[in-house]
Amino acid sequence: MGIGARALRQRVRTAESEDWDFSEGRIFGSMCTQPAPAAVAAARRFVTSNLGNPGLAPGTARLEEEVVAVLLDLFHGPAFGAGGWVLSGGTEANITALWMARNASRKREVVLPESAHFSFVKAIDLLGLEPRWVPLDDQGRASLEDARKAIGPRTAAVVAIAGSTELGAVDPIPALAELARAHGVPLHVDAAFGGFVLPWAGPAAASVPFDLAVPGVTSLAVDPHKMGMAPVPAGVLLVRHREMARSIAVASPYLSSPQTTGLLGTRASSAVAATYAALMGLGHRGYASNVRRVLDLTAQLLAGGRALGLRPAVEPTMNIVAFLHRNPVAVQTWMLERGWDVSSVSAPSSLRFVVMPHATRGTVAALLRDLGSALRRFPP
Amino acid sequence: MGIGARALRQRVRTAESEDWDFSEGRIFGSMCTQPAPAAVAAARRFVTSNLGNPGLAPGTARLEEEVVAVLLDLFHGPAFGAGGWVLSGGTEANITALWMARNASRKREVVLPESAHFSFVKAIDLLGLEPRWVPLDDQGRASLEDARKAIGPRTAAVVAIAGSTELGAVDPIPALAELARAHGVPLHVDAAFGGFVLPWAGPAAASVPFDLAVPGVTSLAVDPHKMGMAPVPAGVLLVRHREMARSIAVASPYLSSPQTTGLLGTRASSAVAATYAALMGLGHRGYASNVRRVLDLTAQLLAGGRALGLRPAVEPTMNIVAFLHRNPVAVQTWMLERGWDVSSVSAPSSLRFVVMPHATRGTVAALLRDLGSALRRFPP
Repeated sequence: MGIGARALRQRVRTAESEDWDFSEGRIFGSMCTQPAPAAVAAARRFVTSNLGNPGLAPGTARLEEEVVAVLLDLFHGPAFGAGGWVLSGGTEANITALWMARNASRKREVVLPESAHFSFVKAIDLLGLEPRWVPLDDQGRASLEDARKAIGPRTAAVVAIAGSTELGAVDPIPALAELARAHGVPLHVDAAFGGFVLPWAGPAAASVPFDLAVPGVTSLAVDPHKMGMAPVPAGVLLVRHREMARSIAVASPYLSSPQTTGLLGTRASSAVAATYAALMGLGHRGYASNVRRVLDLTAQLLAGGRALGLRPAVEPTMNIVAFLHRNPVAVQTWMLERGWDVSSVSAPSSLRFVVMPHATRGTVAALLRDLGSALRRFPP
Repeated sequence: MGIGARALRQRVRTAESEDWDFSEGRIFGSMCTQPAPAAVAAARRFVTSNLGNPGLAPGTARLEEEVVAVLLDLFHGPAFGAGGWVLSGGTEANITALWMARNASRKREVVLPESAHFSFVKAIDLLGLEPRWVPLDDQGRASLEDARKAIGPRTAAVVAIAGSTELGAVDPIPALAELARAHGVPLHVDAAFGGFVLPWAGPAAASVPFDLAVPGVTSLAVDPHKMGMAPVPAGVLLVRHREMARSIAVASPYLSSPQTTGLLGTRASSAVAATYAALMGLGHRGYASNVRRVLDLTAQLLAGGRALGLRPAVEPTMNIVAFLHRNPVAVQTWMLERGWDVSSVSAPSSLRFVVMPHATRGTVAALLRDLGSALRRFPP
């Protein structure tokens, strides 16, 4: 403990150079990307500020209000009574949504699709909930029939996914919301990934309502640090009724606010400022061109994969392609040795590619070349 | 949504200027401070990296290992088997410690002092635990007698505090640890604040063992972003046995690691790099001089307060002073109007001052002058 300033700078720089660099375009296994430059600049300005003590961070608190207002507008929140918070990511948002639902209902069962992100498994363990898993249809979406069987008088909440982590699938949210509403149960939508894709994904996507425009949807998680082009750690939880947070309020003496309603105490102001800068800097036009670009690259990857004899596990609805493969981990390892980050899915057994904004036509073409070599060794 | 680059920069700068600036030295109500410059620089370098997907952040993962090794050394972890993680702060660390204890024991009761930080109230609600509150002695420390009565066959964990949020009190940790050990129960120490004070607080403090040197202490939370001189959001959880994390492991497919053991999914690499830079940049010498300085300023404030007719609620053991006052909120509000951030404690009713490294002899003297005026209006 304790080294000279020069040696310290050198060690920090070395470690930095060891982390993967999104801008090299070789990462196809992550939902994060190289953030918008304005967002990085804003994050750097707010490195020392803590919104966890909001009285000392009135500038950040104002930016958070603006972020929430902009996102309530984007995701069709009602004109009155809705609210939201900038959090550390989808995990915190999903845990918080189920925490509110459990405390408000004093019930224990959660109806959720088998495609739900592992943060829900954490939330279920943490909160002592009982999962009622809903099987998926052949496109990776929650089966409405099975959801109907799973819901009942003990249900605390229903979860639906807008852009599943593995396949990018979008559940039948209007029908699930109607079901939840008929049972007087909240419906939480995990749009951590899809939230910053679907609004700009064109006519097909526009026909899939997934947000607070759907009457029974009571909360929505969306991650600025995924397709929102902000740096980590930035998630957002939006709620139809601000009062939903009352059931999880905890007194916070010694702070400048009398109560705190989040999971964490510390709140990085940098995430709020960065999210604000990403939203305002890119605007609708920036996100639309971003989404169009990654969907074009996804089409390039899909066509290239098909030309190599691969079949997609489902027809992609956003910038995620999973190709069926009997041994995806072998291909993943082989590709990693060649400097590519790709990932695998176990059911259905597939190789998964998330085509993020740091990808280019050139890197997708290079990826396909190496993938071709891999497939000669490990046929699908 | 969407404004020009120049207008955006202006708005971000305006918001930044609205947040309080630690370096002006007028904040006495927060446990955060102006971080070490090397730590801020390191945080800025790692703004886009996410240790939540460690395969893409091998440099950060290595820095985390070094941070954990350095802190296990500082806090006397055993030579073999101990472990730790850099988290987002004390709340995440405290929740995680109780989560592990509940899952490992399948028991529900937690014995904790009335001085426990409100993050434990959150953890208790989240995890469905039952608190057995231990009253405090006249110095704000957990009463050993009452802890003895509270512990029993249903106890999942005992909590002890090394530097309570309100008074900076240190519980009788060796005796509590012996008690916990006799019952085969883990003891978690919340040293979020005191962890970076006590090792350098001089002979009196050295006689209070509080860390993993004490045999029954099984985990310890300490916050680099408080007296550790790193920017938010940086907390650390150390455990005597790495296997303690097994009970909370959740499978994390699609990521580069097969399992995840933390509460959150996203993990800001910037916090890890900043903590590394603070520890290595300051070293023992830097922390020792930092602690000596704030303890001197605390003595200045204590003497000045006494000269104004105030009495401390307890004899300060670290850089926190609480002066008894029948209406602390009135004084707090009055001081806020004059640009001072101070806080209040309800039991015993007092005005609380945290003397952080951004304070100076000059700001303490100025604070005392304004406090004198406040007391003429609101006598203690």
